Amino acid sequence: MTTHTTAGLWRHPESQATRYDELEFWIDRARTLERYGFDGLFIADSFGVPDVYHGSAEQAVREGLQVPSTDPSLMISAMAAATKRLGFGITFPTTATLPYDIARKLSTLDQLSGGRIGWNIVTGLSSNAVRALGTGGELDHDERYDRADEFLEVAYRLWEDCWDDDAVLLDRVNGDYADPERVRPISFEGDHFRVHGIHMSAPTPQRTPLLLQAGSSERGREFAARHAEVVFASAPTPTILRRTVDDLRRRASLHGRDPRSLKVLSILTVVTGLDDAAAQERYEHYRSYASAEGNLARFAATVGIDIGVLDFDEPLEYSQAPGIRTILENFTRADPHRVWTPREIADHMAVSSFGPLLVGGPEHVADEIERWSREADIDGFNLVDVVPGRSFEEFGDYVLPELARRGVWERPVSGTWRSQLFGSGHDRLSDDHPGSPRHRRMRDT
Amino acid sequence: MTTHTTAGLWRHPESQATRYDELEFWIDRARTLERYGFDGLFIADSFGVPDVYHGSAEQAVREGLQVPSTDPSLMISAMAAATKRLGFGITFPTTATLPYDIARKLSTLDQLSGGRIGWNIVTGLSSNAVRALGTGGELDHDERYDRADEFLEVAYRLWEDCWDDDAVLLDRVNGDYADPERVRPISFEGDHFRVHGIHMSAPTPQRTPLLLQAGSSERGREFAARHAEVVFASAPTPTILRRTVDDLRRRASLHGRDPRSLKVLSILTVVTGLDDAAAQERYEHYRSYASAEGNLARFAATVGIDIGVLDFDEPLEYSQAPGIRTILENFTRADPHRVWTPREIADHMAVSSFGPLLVGGPEHVADEIERWSREADIDGFNLVDVVPGRSFEEFGDYVLPELARRGVWERPVSGTWRSQLFGSGHDRLSDDHPGSPRHRRMRDT
Repeated sequence: MTTHTTAGLWRHPESQATRYDELEFWIDRARTLERYGFDGLFIADSFGVPDVYHGSAEQAVREGLQVPSTDPSLMISAMAAATKRLGFGITFPTTATLPYDIARKLSTLDQLSGGRIGWNIVTGLSSNAVRALGTGGELDHDERYDRADEFLEVAYRLWEDCWDDDAVLLDRVNGDYADPERVRPISFEGDHFRVHGIHMSAPTPQRTPLLLQAGSSERGREFAARHAEVVFASAPTPTILRRTVDDLRRRASLHGRDPRSLKVLSILTVVTGLDDAAAQERYEHYRSYASAEGNLARFAATVGIDIGVLDFDEPLEYSQAPGIRTILENFTRADPHRVWTPREIADHMAVSSFGPLLVGGPEHVADEIERWSREADIDGFNLVDVVPGRSFEEFGDYVLPELARRGVWERPVSGTWRSQLFGSGHDRLSDDHPGSPRHRRMRDT
Repeated sequence: MTTHTTAGLWRHPESQATRYDELEFWIDRARTLERYGFDGLFIADSFGVPDVYHGSAEQAVREGLQVPSTDPSLMISAMAAATKRLGFGITFPTTATLPYDIARKLSTLDQLSGGRIGWNIVTGLSSNAVRALGTGGELDHDERYDRADEFLEVAYRLWEDCWDDDAVLLDRVNGDYADPERVRPISFEGDHFRVHGIHMSAPTPQRTPLLLQAGSSERGREFAARHAEVVFASAPTPTILRRTVDDLRRRASLHGRDPRSLKVLSILTVVTGLDDAAAQERYEHYRSYASAEGNLARFAATVGIDIGVLDFDEPLEYSQAPGIRTILENFTRADPHRVWTPREIADHMAVSSFGPLLVGGPEHVADEIERWSREADIDGFNLVDVVPGRSFEEFGDYVLPELARRGVWERPVSGTWRSQLFGSGHDRLSDDHPGSPRHRRMRDT
């Protein structure tokens, strides 16, 4: 995804970011992650190009922000063929797509990969994506989530209800490929979708792919608490993150789910090395490649305000843009009332973008990872590949052995992605998940 | 695709058809085809399940007709990574999809494969696909083609106009990933689509993928003559096919295209072996696995008439179903007025489905291929993989060496798929193609 997360760092001599369009690059990424023992590879995706900064896409094009890029779903089979155990998290939006099609795509990938697929459920599209696709802008924020709820309801039925586990017979003597008695069409008439037919895939190892989500709004957290098995979250300190995590687990309980069945991962950028000094040196080196304008273009697209027209050293006036406040709060570790200038924002985003940053040798990073896990009550981390070809390798070389030595991390075992996270035998949605057949039968009676 | 083309033959002991959901099967298919020197692998695709026969999908499910199946587009990268030269033809419909999304998908695959992607443009959906997707049934036959024309117009602009060839700079010193002056958004407002934005892919080896099409109606042939570079056609005899080919080339000329720039491929099923007797024996063996009911279910879905309710040995009455007549004409080699019973239809479809069939040793098959090429004025054949794991291999072992010996076939060279078919250097749309920038500039001025 070129420099999706780290404006300017594609220029680092060790960065492989510009190879985003080569199959060999992705195959190498996947093999490397599997070798080190990472759980999975999550590839972000988005349509359209950030075009708020100076009211145009110019900065995005100049710096390779989100564009040019590829469709990640189409790279998975090559990576799956080159690995045995690694999970793959991919994004499909529930806007401007159809559940029958997306359900088939996810089943195909789950089947071909042996049950190693996670779906990052994105409900909305940016305004530039809406203009490019020519659809998807009809719904407001909450309606988008209503549509997503219905999208999931259709998808659950296709994945879980259509085909019995023993429906495929391959009976060559009687000529029965499958038993029609054990295959049922679904019949759904909702506010957003009408779907009448048979799911095109036979049951895949996970049936419903592992469900990932990153919604942070009130409605987004409610959606995540209902559907997600893995939630991506971000906050500047463990204490602030803890509030989100507690709220997510509380909401999951209200939906009848085991609150521990929600795995919360914090976004995290790590710059490490042999020791603290080496890590700090490397961090300064990375910093020197960061692009202030590129990061402000990303920030502008996120908050929807063209801060390109402002003086770089003039403090932002929040009254002009209430939304900016919340996002800036995610930057501050100490003072939520601090006033920021555009230059300070760019500076803060230099290496770690919106998420927290750890710089240090293996012991410092491991200490901090333990502290975050404990204080925020989270289950893991979504590491940012700041310098592709280097960042994951650094973490694997220096930090993972230290975490293993402390007994707080061990190499994942083989199996479906869900069973790797929830334990052997847990290939399918658990019974307390709203998408499980058992849960939906109870609800509907 | 399980038994998409050959009902019942999945039961043949040598058939690998049931491995359609294994990556290793597809990777092996691709490697095998490349090794023999086939031009490309075309994978058909469709949404929904045939459900006309006896008014239900029961027969389709029982015999694995189109279902269960996978989304072929998601298997390409694994096959591309395992091969160097083979082309890949994949299907995306222009109904129930958005051009901005499909254009990105095709660019992604063209990029990752090094320019080896062909797009089989399908304009319509079956009625059961419309019910399953919940959309796409709003347009009648001709409107579908109008939408497809507009879809292509948008796609050409995205592929050909957005990014100059030299737009991507990767200038690490100045920090310029790309030059915004050489990247332009498109702005399109049509009857079916509104698209405002930048194509997300930088120029790929072919830019516009090789365009494949199979429309056989009047409007379909007009569409193919305008857009297609490769046309799939089918007729029972070379003489009948010749009429279609002449019409296609004549229409292409009217669009200002070189009529030879339209490569017409005939669907063809070949059963061969060491000599005629071996081939005949193999054919009888294949026949013994054919399913009459499965083929009638496929036939019923194609003509939209439930012939499951008819007596198997009662001649069809065409007056009930005018559409059936045209399709039955495609069966007859001699007498267009022949009256068919359902059993005779099933019998005729046993091994070769709707297309022509050649059974014989290498010399007989090569003779017939030469005759078809000459009499029908076609450029090649789209071979049916009747018994996956066996049929392509038989053709490669017995027929290709004979064709090479006669000097009518040679191994394709490396390069983009388009250049393999149209000659070295022809990576992009030719200037006389309606999608080429030159042609559109002339049209619009």
